[in-house]
Amino acid sequence: MSSLSKPGRTILASSIAKVYTDEIVSKIADLKEERPNGPLLVGFLANNDPAAEMYATWTQKTSESLGIRYELRRFEDKDLLEESIIEANNEDSVDGIMIYFPVFGNAQDQYLQQIVSKEKDVEGLNHVYYQNLYHNVRYLDDAKQLKSILPCTPLAIVKILEYLKIYNSLLPYGNHLYGKKCMVINRSEIVGRPLAALLANDGAIVYSIDINNIQKFTRGESIQYSRHHVEDLGDFTQNKLKSLAQECDVIITGVPSESYKFPTEYVRDGACCINFSSFKNFNDEVKNKASLYVPMTGKVTIAMLLRNMLRLIENREKLNQETPSN
Amino acid sequence: MSSLSKPGRTILASSIAKVYTDEIVSKIADLKEERPNGPLLVGFLANNDPAAEMYATWTQKTSESLGIRYELRRFEDKDLLEESIIEANNEDSVDGIMIYFPVFGNAQDQYLQQIVSKEKDVEGLNHVYYQNLYHNVRYLDDAKQLKSILPCTPLAIVKILEYLKIYNSLLPYGNHLYGKKCMVINRSEIVGRPLAALLANDGAIVYSIDINNIQKFTRGESIQYSRHHVEDLGDFTQNKLKSLAQECDVIITGVPSESYKFPTEYVRDGACCINFSSFKNFNDEVKNKASLYVPMTGKVTIAMLLRNMLRLIENREKLNQETPSN
Repeated sequence: MSSLSKPGRTILASSIAKVYTDEIVSKIADLKEERPNGPLLVGFLANNDPAAEMYATWTQKTSESLGIRYELRRFEDKDLLEESIIEANNEDSVDGIMIYFPVFGNAQDQYLQQIVSKEKDVEGLNHVYYQNLYHNVRYLDDAKQLKSILPCTPLAIVKILEYLKIYNSLLPYGNHLYGKKCMVINRSEIVGRPLAALLANDGAIVYSIDINNIQKFTRGESIQYSRHHVEDLGDFTQNKLKSLAQECDVIITGVPSESYKFPTEYVRDGACCINFSSFKNFNDEVKNKASLYVPMTGKVTIAMLLRNMLRLIENREKLNQETPSN
Repeated sequence: MSSLSKPGRTILASSIAKVYTDEIVSKIADLKEERPNGPLLVGFLANNDPAAEMYATWTQKTSESLGIRYELRRFEDKDLLEESIIEANNEDSVDGIMIYFPVFGNAQDQYLQQIVSKEKDVEGLNHVYYQNLYHNVRYLDDAKQLKSILPCTPLAIVKILEYLKIYNSLLPYGNHLYGKKCMVINRSEIVGRPLAALLANDGAIVYSIDINNIQKFTRGESIQYSRHHVEDLGDFTQNKLKSLAQECDVIITGVPSESYKFPTEYVRDGACCINFSSFKNFNDEVKNKASLYVPMTGKVTIAMLLRNMLRLIENREKLNQETPSN
């Protein structure tokens, strides 16, 4: 018998996050002069969702361990949230703002999401950031001084793929995923669709799956817009899912359901599996098939939102230098 | 027997729209110098929905009858829409842009809606306009030179209520609905919720009904924000609906279903009934109960979007005067 250990590896989000938290700590040190107590992140919580509560606790822990002040503002009355966020938009001491969704649990949440000023939107949920993502636009200004922000969960997945060396830095910039096929099970406006676009913009072929249909995102021909192209592959069927999954180097799941499990037998031997749902969308047996398996991504997402906050602070400082107050 | 005719009246949207179309014609005449062929409205259509098709036909007819050029841009491939709208945002000759929804029929439509530049958004769907509506903010700038736009359907209902003299101009400005109770059956982010807020901001008590629950919008105590306050009245029940409806001076329906009918027996004798759904949400017997009945509102909505376009043109001209090109 061979003494080889099992070929696959499970990679924990904490290991991946560490690369970025180290970077954050050193940037916070550079900010010591202007912000001796560290920058301030404010979270808004107006639900009793235990998942949101846990997310808030983790954000607080991570922030404080890195020298970032964190303040949780809790509301019983959801209708007070909007005005309070607007106040925080205008508070000089507040560097970043995030809301723990769901608040209303319907389309009103999309309205609320846009209330956070884009200068403090650490999660990168402002329409401007999504529009830039889809159009592969990296800067907010024509002079390319102010970097755009990416929504933190899609960004976390990209950083995970970089860590896992699925992004190949030998390939030309902007083409690091050339030749790779990825599957994304989720097409929400918050994560799944922007993620598929990001991966396609970096050169991958992406199968985007939702309950209704299957789409294929590629960079396509339209160099004119240097952005992805979407092709409809018709209604969702298990057979299609299976045959497409077997082509894929990477399978990324984000189904918000405790009972959903991606069928292990659909995973190609040696594929890379990543789950960003707060529920485990893969059975443990996936470890016998996947070369690399990342069962949860939350800690990388938190690292990304703190990284976004530092980028927003940099942008604000550049703007202040340009337009000194009288 | 009395020779009195039936006391109620049915008012057609066309009569109400006429007040505004006359105003539009005279403003178009004032623009003759800069736009000898009339301003240009561009509609984007990428579905086969007959209701959208009809809406487009009516917009074209109305526009052209008033001296406004109208151009319908049709797309088979929905994915081309976004880039084409961005092009229209940048076309100097285009004064107004509108999209016929649904396009994707899911949350991606909300993304698309925000792609239209707010300077050309005749329907008033940009987040800035909704945020101003909820906060009772009438101008886009601190100098109060640039008027904000209101979303065209909620605005149409307000104009209908003015025409019907439910808005009482003897009351102080901003309080024209003081003492009135209104019911709005629909709490979409596009029409129902903003409409309830608008009416509450003008002094009414508004019961906002959706399938899940009932809310009461009032201006409330918070003069600080000069905006409405929302109170939760619990789950929807037929009994609650009935007893609240009997208090109401105005019942406004907007249920997007052919089978839904508001129970005529819930309408108080002499109430005013308005339906903005493209399906008739009232049975014809309502004419025997309602003092004033407006069975459809689409023509007023079209008048409002053309009125919005003129306001956007005014704003653009004011901006051009302030910052002459070098």
